[in-house]
Amino acid sequence: MTNESFMQRLSLNQITTEQWSLKEAVNGCLRHEIPWISIWRHKIAEVGLKKARRLIQDANMHVSSICRGGMFPATTAKERAERIDDNKRAIEEAAELGADTLVLVCGPSADRDIETGRKQVADAIDQLVPYAKDHGVKLAIEPLHPMFAADRSVINTLDQANTIAKNYSSDEVGVIVDVYHVWWDPQLYAEIERAGEHILGYHVSDWKVPMPDMFKGRAMMGEGVIELHKIRQAVEQAGYDGPIEVEIINQSLWDSDPHQVLDEIKRSYAKYV
Amino acid sequence: MTNESFMQRLSLNQITTEQWSLKEAVNGCLRHEIPWISIWRHKIAEVGLKKARRLIQDANMHVSSICRGGMFPATTAKERAERIDDNKRAIEEAAELGADTLVLVCGPSADRDIETGRKQVADAIDQLVPYAKDHGVKLAIEPLHPMFAADRSVINTLDQANTIAKNYSSDEVGVIVDVYHVWWDPQLYAEIERAGEHILGYHVSDWKVPMPDMFKGRAMMGEGVIELHKIRQAVEQAGYDGPIEVEIINQSLWDSDPHQVLDEIKRSYAKYV
Repeated sequence: MTNESFMQRLSLNQITTEQWSLKEAVNGCLRHEIPWISIWRHKIAEVGLKKARRLIQDANMHVSSICRGGMFPATTAKERAERIDDNKRAIEEAAELGADTLVLVCGPSADRDIETGRKQVADAIDQLVPYAKDHGVKLAIEPLHPMFAADRSVINTLDQANTIAKNYSSDEVGVIVDVYHVWWDPQLYAEIERAGEHILGYHVSDWKVPMPDMFKGRAMMGEGVIELHKIRQAVEQAGYDGPIEVEIINQSLWDSDPHQVLDEIKRSYAKYV
Repeated sequence: MTNESFMQRLSLNQITTEQWSLKEAVNGCLRHEIPWISIWRHKIAEVGLKKARRLIQDANMHVSSICRGGMFPATTAKERAERIDDNKRAIEEAAELGADTLVLVCGPSADRDIETGRKQVADAIDQLVPYAKDHGVKLAIEPLHPMFAADRSVINTLDQANTIAKNYSSDEVGVIVDVYHVWWDPQLYAEIERAGEHILGYHVSDWKVPMPDMFKGRAMMGEGVIELHKIRQAVEQAGYDGPIEVEIINQSLWDSDPHQVLDEIKRSYAKYV
C-alpha cells in the first residue's frame, strides 16, 4: 500500500477530540486532510440530526461508524425493550448520516450474573438485526477489555464477539477489532482470522505503562506496548481494507489544542500503525 | 461443609495487611484465629529466613503459599538466568517455611513481543521444575487479569496457565484461581474443570465499581460484582479443598487498623465466600 492510499484510510474517532463539537471536528478533519470521521451520538444530539447530516454532506466527509449502540442488559423486560428502542434510534442516525456501521458497546450485566448479561446481549442483537438491515446498517460488536467487564461490556473477547457475529451474514453483524481491548489476548490472531469478512472496523491507540487512568488513559500510537504493525497485518490478511479509526480516550489530549492532536495523530499513524 | 471447617480454610494473604511485619501478621492471625497465612518474600527479607521460620513454627501457623516467584521474561540470556536463580531462592524459602506452594506471577514481556515473553515463561518454568520438586515445592501459575499484561504478567487466562501446568504432574506445576483475575473470563468454568487437581490455590477479594485504582483497588468480598459462591463451588467440584487466601490489595485497607481489617475479613469470608 502506498503511503498516500494508507493515509486515505485514516479516520478520526470523535471521542479523541471530545473538546470539539461535531462542526469543529469536521472542520478539523478538512483542515488536516483526514477523510473519515466516526461520530458519537452525544455530539449528534448537541446539534440535532438534520444539522449533523448537513455538516457531513457539505464537508463531503465519510462516516466510518456511529458510536455507539449497545448497553443491552437490564433487570426488567421493560428496561430491555427501552434499550432496544434506543438502539433503533442509533440505527436511524447511522442511516441518516450515511454510516453503514453502528458500533455496539454491549453493556455490563444488570447484576452479578454475568452469564445472563451475556445472553441478554445476544438476544438484543438478534432482535435488532432486521431493523438494522432495513436501514442498511451493520451492527458491529466491539469486545471491550476485560477490565471493563463490570461497568461497560460483558463482551470481552473477540471469541465472544465472533461467536455472536457468525450467526449472521457479514452484512448484518460483525466485529470491531480495537487494539486497546484485544492486544493481550492469546487467541487474538486465531480470532482475527476466524472473524474474516465479519471485521467491520479497526481501531487504534496504544497501551502505555503506567496507565494514567483505566478509562481515560489510552496512549498515542507508538507510545505503548501494542504490536500495531503485526495486528494490522493480521486484520488485513483476514480481508479488512476499510477505514482505520484513531480512538484515543485520554484526558490530557482533551486538555490539548486539538489541531496539535490531529498533527500528532497523522505522524503516529503514518509511522506506527 | 460446617461453618467451623470452612473457617479452618481461611488464609490471610499477607499483602492484605501490608502495613504489618511478618511477626505482627502472625500474631494477628493467632489473635483472630486465622489458621493459615500466605507470606510475601519482602516480609521474609525484613526479618531473615531463620527468624521467619521460628516465627511460623512457634505460632504453629500453616503457610498456604509463598508470594511470589516468577518475573521470568528478560532481554538477555544472562538476565533470564538471574531470574531463574532468584526463583530458586524463592523455592528454598518456601521449603524452609513449610509451604508446599510457590505462587508465580510470571512477569511482563521484555519488549513489545508478547508471544516471545510467553515462551520465555514456559521455558523458565520447565527449567525450575526439577529444583522445585527436589525441595518438595509446587509451582503455582497465577494468571493475572489482562489489564496487567503489560506490566506484571503475560499469563492472563486460566487457559494459558492450564496449558503450561498440564505438561507436568500436579505435584510439580499447577494453577492459582484468583477470582479478581479470572471472574470475567467466558471460559472460566470450563477451565476450572479442566484444571482439576492442578488447582493449587484459591484466592478471593472482589471487583468494585468504580475501581479506585488498577493495582491497589481490590475490594472486600461482597462489595463487588464477583460471583464468589459460584466460583468457589466450581473450584471445589474440580477437587480443591485447600486453604482459601484472602488477598486484597487496597490502599485504604493499608491505611486502616489491621485488627479491624481481620475482623471484617472473617465476617465477609463467612458470608460471601
